[in-house]
Amino acid sequence: MEILVIGIGAGDPDQLTMQGVRAIERADVFFVLDKGEVKQELVELRTEILQRYAPGAKVVVGRDPERDRGSAAYVESVDDWRRRRADVCAGMIERELSGDQVGAFLVWGDPSLYDSTLAILDDLLARGELDFGIEVIPGISSVSALAAKHRIGLNQVGKPIQITTGRRLAKEWPEGVDDVVVMLDAQTAFTAHTDQDADIFWGAYLGTPDELLVAGKLSEVAGEIEKIRAEARERKGWIMDTYLLRRGHR
Amino acid sequence: MEILVIGIGAGDPDQLTMQGVRAIERADVFFVLDKGEVKQELVELRTEILQRYAPGAKVVVGRDPERDRGSAAYVESVDDWRRRRADVCAGMIERELSGDQVGAFLVWGDPSLYDSTLAILDDLLARGELDFGIEVIPGISSVSALAAKHRIGLNQVGKPIQITTGRRLAKEWPEGVDDVVVMLDAQTAFTAHTDQDADIFWGAYLGTPDELLVAGKLSEVAGEIEKIRAEARERKGWIMDTYLLRRGHR
Repeated sequence: MEILVIGIGAGDPDQLTMQGVRAIERADVFFVLDKGEVKQELVELRTEILQRYAPGAKVVVGRDPERDRGSAAYVESVDDWRRRRADVCAGMIERELSGDQVGAFLVWGDPSLYDSTLAILDDLLARGELDFGIEVIPGISSVSALAAKHRIGLNQVGKPIQITTGRRLAKEWPEGVDDVVVMLDAQTAFTAHTDQDADIFWGAYLGTPDELLVAGKLSEVAGEIEKIRAEARERKGWIMDTYLLRRGHR
Repeated sequence: MEILVIGIGAGDPDQLTMQGVRAIERADVFFVLDKGEVKQELVELRTEILQRYAPGAKVVVGRDPERDRGSAAYVESVDDWRRRRADVCAGMIERELSGDQVGAFLVWGDPSLYDSTLAILDDLLARGELDFGIEVIPGISSVSALAAKHRIGLNQVGKPIQITTGRRLAKEWPEGVDDVVVMLDAQTAFTAHTDQDADIFWGAYLGTPDELLVAGKLSEVAGEIEKIRAEARERKGWIMDTYLLRRGHR
């Protein structure tokens, strides 16, 4: 048995790579963890990709367990959620895959950035109940898509970039870097840094018809982004956004 | 006039996205900065992509100015080199493009990571002698390719990642991060940190037939990587490598 973990890009089906297309064509079964109604449009985009490159494919949907987002013990809560996700995945793989069949997980963005699919599969292998090979097909991350839409580089000449979470940025601007990319920000953490002489390059629903982009001096556009973000979230029921904060640009 | 900046992936022609294929099909002229003989294989890979998706395309090769790599004033030396590259690009665009024609630069990896094409085009627009639109097509970076080949995530749960240069890592392990991705390392800077309780995930010529991968405890495999790297560089005349250093993995 082999499991393909396929990065399908940030939201535009055309961000799929040729390698991704071939991997989709190779797969016998696609595994999907259904997050409920909230991100229905993302599920539809994934369906569009499957219809285009693997029409008639077998898709098995597992129920994604609820995560305790209110928990203060963030790492433990993620660990527990992963364990329950792993149980769901183990069930799907055991039921649906045998012999030399190939299963696939389609992952938004790039499987290497803040995605748990690989960790779950490693957990399953470590449990020793299942045995399979893993191949990872890299995808265009929302970070790359963001930079492309703003037509900017992520780094300044010879300087580092930090990719971090909203939770961390809310506490402090990271040490030693002027360029900070923020993912998984449920709390508009950039508003904590409007005293910085920084620019922000913000984007939501990147690559989809609903794409939103705002760029400017952080102190001047932070309020506008908060407003646009809240409205979009209200209208669509969910939001997926990411941004670059840039300090000290010459 | 429009200039497309197209990320073509880290070395495997199949890492091109559907968006990249369509952009290549749209372009009238391809601009190439020739770095001399050293990276001839990269030029051949690019040629292969063009032959596959734009057979018979017009390719204009500019002579890439030499960069003063010995200079201590790193940023100034890069600035000067960029200025001279910008002159070469301005000449090519002026001579070859007119009206509503579309020119394209094919960029290895992702145009947003340690690539100077966008900065050069911004310089050209700022000079005011040329006027054109810019569209950026994101590509699979060597960082994503590295993580995919090692089948790992770049981040640990809820933690940040720093992407930095060999030059910086040689001086110190960056503040506040356990996961450090290093690009542009001409000096095996990881050897300065073998006292750390860290793992290294290293890769060279990612996605090409010459791909090399080594992973392990940094203190145990650093010497092996140095040796493999030196041999490969000697054999091929050039090397392009990247790696992740991971500390404190549970």
